[in-house]
Amino acid sequence: MIISMKLHSTKEEIAEVKERIEDFGYKVHSIEGEQRVVIGVIGVGDVTACLEALEAMPQVEKAVRISAPYKFVSREFRQTKTEITTGNVTIGGDEFVVMAGPCSVENEKQILESAEIVARAGAKILRGGAFKPRTSPYDFQGLEEEGLKLLDKARRATGLRIITEVMSDRDVGLVADYADILQIGARNMQNFALLKNLGQCGRPILLKRGMSSTVKELLMSAEYIVAHGNPKVMLCERGIRTFETVTRNTCDIAAVAALNELTHLPVILDPSHATGKRSLVPALARAAVAIGSDGLLVEMHPHPEKAISDGAQSLDPKQFAKMMEDLKPYIELWKQSRIEEAVAAV
Amino acid sequence: MIISMKLHSTKEEIAEVKERIEDFGYKVHSIEGEQRVVIGVIGVGDVTACLEALEAMPQVEKAVRISAPYKFVSREFRQTKTEITTGNVTIGGDEFVVMAGPCSVENEKQILESAEIVARAGAKILRGGAFKPRTSPYDFQGLEEEGLKLLDKARRATGLRIITEVMSDRDVGLVADYADILQIGARNMQNFALLKNLGQCGRPILLKRGMSSTVKELLMSAEYIVAHGNPKVMLCERGIRTFETVTRNTCDIAAVAALNELTHLPVILDPSHATGKRSLVPALARAAVAIGSDGLLVEMHPHPEKAISDGAQSLDPKQFAKMMEDLKPYIELWKQSRIEEAVAAV
Amino acid sequence: MIISMKLHSTKEEIAEVKERIEDFGYKVHSIEGEQRVVIGVIGVGDVTACLEALEAMPQVEKAVRISAPYKFVSREFRQTKTEITTGNVTIGGDEFVVMAGPCSVENEKQILESAEIVARAGAKILRGGAFKPRTSPYDFQGLEEEGLKLLDKARRATGLRIITEVMSDRDVGLVADYADILQIGARNMQNFALLKNLGQCGRPILLKRGMSSTVKELLMSAEYIVAHGNPKVMLCERGIRTFETVTRNTCDIAAVAALNELTHLPVILDPSHATGKRSLVPALARAAVAIGSDGLLVEMHPHPEKAISDGAQSLDPKQFAKMMEDLKPYIELWKQSRIEEAVAAV
Amino acid sequence: MIISMKLHSTKEEIAEVKERIEDFGYKVHSIEGEQRVVIGVIGVGDVTACLEALEAMPQVEKAVRISAPYKFVSREFRQTKTEITTGNVTIGGDEFVVMAGPCSVENEKQILESAEIVARAGAKILRGGAFKPRTSPYDFQGLEEEGLKLLDKARRATGLRIITEVMSDRDVGLVADYADILQIGARNMQNFALLKNLGQCGRPILLKRGMSSTVKELLMSAEYIVAHGNPKVMLCERGIRTFETVTRNTCDIAAVAALNELTHLPVILDPSHATGKRSLVPALARAAVAIGSDGLLVEMHPHPEKAISDGAQSLDPKQFAKMMEDLKPYIELWKQSRIEEAVAAV
Repeated sequence: MIISMKLHSTKEEIAEVKERIEDFGYKVHSIEGEQRVVIGVIGVGDVTACLEALEAMPQVEKAVRISAPYKFVSREFRQTKTEITTGNVTIGGDEFVVMAGPCSVENEKQILESAEIVARAGAKILRGGAFKPRTSPYDFQGLEEEGLKLLDKARRATGLRIITEVMSDRDVGLVADYADILQIGARNMQNFALLKNLGQCGRPILLKRGMSSTVKELLMSAEYIVAHGNPKVMLCERGIRTFETVTRNTCDIAAVAALNELTHLPVILDPSHATGKRSLVPALARAAVAIGSDGLLVEMHPHPEKAISDGAQSLDPKQFAKMMEDLKPYIELWKQSRIEEAVAAV
Repeated sequence: MIISMKLHSTKEEIAEVKERIEDFGYKVHSIEGEQRVVIGVIGVGDVTACLEALEAMPQVEKAVRISAPYKFVSREFRQTKTEITTGNVTIGGDEFVVMAGPCSVENEKQILESAEIVARAGAKILRGGAFKPRTSPYDFQGLEEEGLKLLDKARRATGLRIITEVMSDRDVGLVADYADILQIGARNMQNFALLKNLGQCGRPILLKRGMSSTVKELLMSAEYIVAHGNPKVMLCERGIRTFETVTRNTCDIAAVAALNELTHLPVILDPSHATGKRSLVPALARAAVAIGSDGLLVEMHPHPEKAISDGAQSLDPKQFAKMMEDLKPYIELWKQSRIEEAVAAV
Repeated sequence: MIISMKLHSTKEEIAEVKERIEDFGYKVHSIEGEQRVVIGVIGVGDVTACLEALEAMPQVEKAVRISAPYKFVSREFRQTKTEITTGNVTIGGDEFVVMAGPCSVENEKQILESAEIVARAGAKILRGGAFKPRTSPYDFQGLEEEGLKLLDKARRATGLRIITEVMSDRDVGLVADYADILQIGARNMQNFALLKNLGQCGRPILLKRGMSSTVKELLMSAEYIVAHGNPKVMLCERGIRTFETVTRNTCDIAAVAALNELTHLPVILDPSHATGKRSLVPALARAAVAIGSDGLLVEMHPHPEKAISDGAQSLDPKQFAKMMEDLKPYIELWKQSRIEEAVAAV
Repeated sequence: MIISMKLHSTKEEIAEVKERIEDFGYKVHSIEGEQRVVIGVIGVGDVTACLEALEAMPQVEKAVRISAPYKFVSREFRQTKTEITTGNVTIGGDEFVVMAGPCSVENEKQILESAEIVARAGAKILRGGAFKPRTSPYDFQGLEEEGLKLLDKARRATGLRIITEVMSDRDVGLVADYADILQIGARNMQNFALLKNLGQCGRPILLKRGMSSTVKELLMSAEYIVAHGNPKVMLCERGIRTFETVTRNTCDIAAVAALNELTHLPVILDPSHATGKRSLVPALARAAVAIGSDGLLVEMHPHPEKAISDGAQSLDPKQFAKMMEDLKPYIELWKQSRIEEAVAAV
């Protein structure tokens, strides 16, 4: 922390600030400029509380935090990428992993058909919502446990692993009984009661970035899960909310590159929610591979024009197969650069 | 709903769209322009599912919803403002209601002192967090039930009513046992599991707008609570997230006026979170009265520079008393315009 | 400036940073923490260049500017509000000034009628665009010099002063020949060629905040005008661009209060562009008075439904007169608080 | 255009709306629903004026534009990509074009050195600012004509073509005398006086997207230039302004894919301004190739830590050469997909 005093602060005012800092267990070190006094804060303590208390003092111009507020998820804590394995799939390793399937589990036929289509095209994990976060109380809310059972059937039929969303801390146990990976949706990224509960669920977590959450807040939410006991967290960029309306959200693709510097956790990109438009998904998927994400989360529906939800952004089976085919040479390049990075790290 | 077809759509393509619309139980009515066909959709059905399905069809240029997606909370459903009474306080009526107190309940002395200060200055409701949503897992998370008990003590000591936050559907019953009003924080505005649970809690709800939620999404979240059985909902504008950093959030004050047109639910403004700066709170509070909000939610701490959280935006006792004094003539004007509106409505 | 070094920087790396700082003519003062070295920068120099150069060094974690980048427009430079007088109207003094009129000057009848209507209701300054910034090249672009002549006629007929927009540095002289106040639109707030030209035009300037400009950038653009020789600048909040669509823009009303702390320049609020909806204008105008702006810029058209531009946000004559009447008691309170502030400042 | 009337509009109110539409030269066609009347507007006229006039009528619920507001720049106007040739370089064809160089032209040595470095690594066009848009009036404003002369020297020394920014309609002639491509910066994207002037300058234009401009507004600004006589326009995505601060701007990469659908104009991506961080530039450049942009605009400085501006986001010579090398296989894939598209279009 660095504290900059207002111009013309008196000695008494400066002393009062130093005293408050010391109350929090820190040491102080001040720089007396010609115009302004700056106080450096050294040591370990409750940084947020101290910062907020100092900002409340009228003689303080600015209080700036220097060190990152997260620990376990930082690259400084762990140099190599975390590998998360479920069944025979590993995310964060030397394989680019595609998770695909419909927005919602609608019925047995639909989810089994979906599973076969995505498996055939090369996806390793099946997505499908059983608990659906819907803006309107009058929209389809998901099949709940019945949907989880259908996902299980699809898993047994195809060998795919299963990812599905959990929306309440009450349901963590139930969803963990069925799913291989638990997905936390954008609207729940800061549902702290839920995050705490994920610490002991024994399953990998895919944590989606909130619509208006910063990269740092995403890392802090991941830190919640890790700090509560579960290190198997992957992050997901799915577009943020901006003024632009030509796409449903704005894909912050540079955040993937930034996250690769800041954290060792795997990063997945969801081109379906990021654009909201089927025709833009394959191009964005290529970019996601090129920039170095660890995988994709893509919506595919056997009949998008009959889908209960998200039809406009779902690929149909043919489009999905073509996208997977087109991605192959990009994934080859991706693998080469992973090998080069691994060699460079030795 | 109105569906605009792409230029040069064939008869078959148009017929296919009409058929899909009719599958959802609607009637269609088409306008054949020189360049383009437009289809009007008439009747009642699952609007969201139908819209999404149509958007998934390649021959559709645009599908636009005309009617509002909410019902119970709309001004069309109810012309006069909903009055919400707790004890001897009524929100939404002819009284401008101030809710004030510290960000967090820290200890008995602090909350009792706070209660006396805000009561003396004219507030009717005491705020104070027992469950705290904190960005970092390492920050103070609240006193939980112990905090609720201290709020109860403060209520008995001063006669103030109590508002406090609930963060999980698990805790709704517990918090409702102590609180007069349940507050839903910005990060939980779209925690749909929680919203559904509020339907049967028997307490008024203050629903804060999410940081990146639109006015319509706020109304949809209120609709969730009302549709699940609880009509006593008040809305709260507390600033949205934008690129501006001179304030902590950007207060969307015009949303208060827009909400007064769109809904009959009371609207509260929170100038503390909206600005994040104590010095700006009184000016924004005046504006909130002038624009016609139904009340304020304000942070006041006996010793802001010692507060565990939100010190920088908390008024101290003297500042709070001055603000309340300065608001009086504005509240007088507010009352006159409420009387004029009531007369005009007869 | 304060420079925070990366963890584990070597002595050589630190020395290199210090050398670079000294190259810019500054003195350095370092704090050696247990984990991290922080360098304070003291003295006067080219701050931006130095900051950018330091950020380019790999061993630098963060470089933070402490002092404000503007001088002449800051409250520290001048304690009392700048008063700007044109004819018998003074902005920034003890009078709340309303500027009103149509979006565009359309023809003689329309502008004369507008002028009479706004004058009768109490406005002191007539607005009307002769050069129009339009998103589409196919929309009406304004009457140009012919429009300026019509504004002059309206001025002579009513005694109102005239404000109108200038869009190019080429036209500054022409517009200054006719107008009493030159308006710089949101899209030109960072048209630096234009800003420099305003320094010598001899007219007061109303500088509108850019749609995505921060308060600090607005102050920097004002600083351009003042630094080039023209101290008569007033600022205008007209809504910023966010994700919200219920209003045309999002009125950042707290920015008015923030500006009143940061600068001595008068601040005007434009509730018409801020909302884009006629029905919301009067409520926002009341809030603007209450929060302490120095005046309003409002669109009024004799027949909004026939207006060439901005009809949806223009008040009609009756609505404008009612708004002006309703504002009176708020303006009374505004005057009292100005007097109190003046007394407090002595 | 489609006009939706408010619920319970009377016959007279509906007739009034139809009359107003016919005043603008359109034909009307109405759909009478059970609850609501919808009016379809057919024909050709001044859409914006008509829309705004209708929105000003109290009985109108919503007025929606269906057709795009731009013509010449749309894919419907021209199916194949516009190729822009300057010297022996063609943008928009089968070559991926890299433009690189320093932010500012600082002196002869710096710009000649830069030109040689970028040419050697494979760039075809040299960038460098002679007129600099700087937030602060106290920052370096560029060498102006002297800078243009130095760019000319660098062109003659290396055979590179030159791109440089023009900031005022006054300077268009001067800059066009020296530059091969004129760059319009983000802050001037809606400087309509400048855009109009570019119509006759005889040079290709690179138009940068404004910080808070939508894709549609970018296309409208391009339409200005084309409609005024200059069809050689390329667009540039350089990041938009959002709440995120981990990068300087937020790169809206999906906009590149969206633009490739909406327009035939070439699209360039600027990873330097989009991120503001040198370390993120190469990854984003790869993504830009993969998503199908037509080229890159990249900042490279011989000594970033001594640069007068933008040092933090400038690559050094070694990093630039490595990036160019690493891009090669991606550019190979890019060429293949261009050939496939061309074949598919036949």
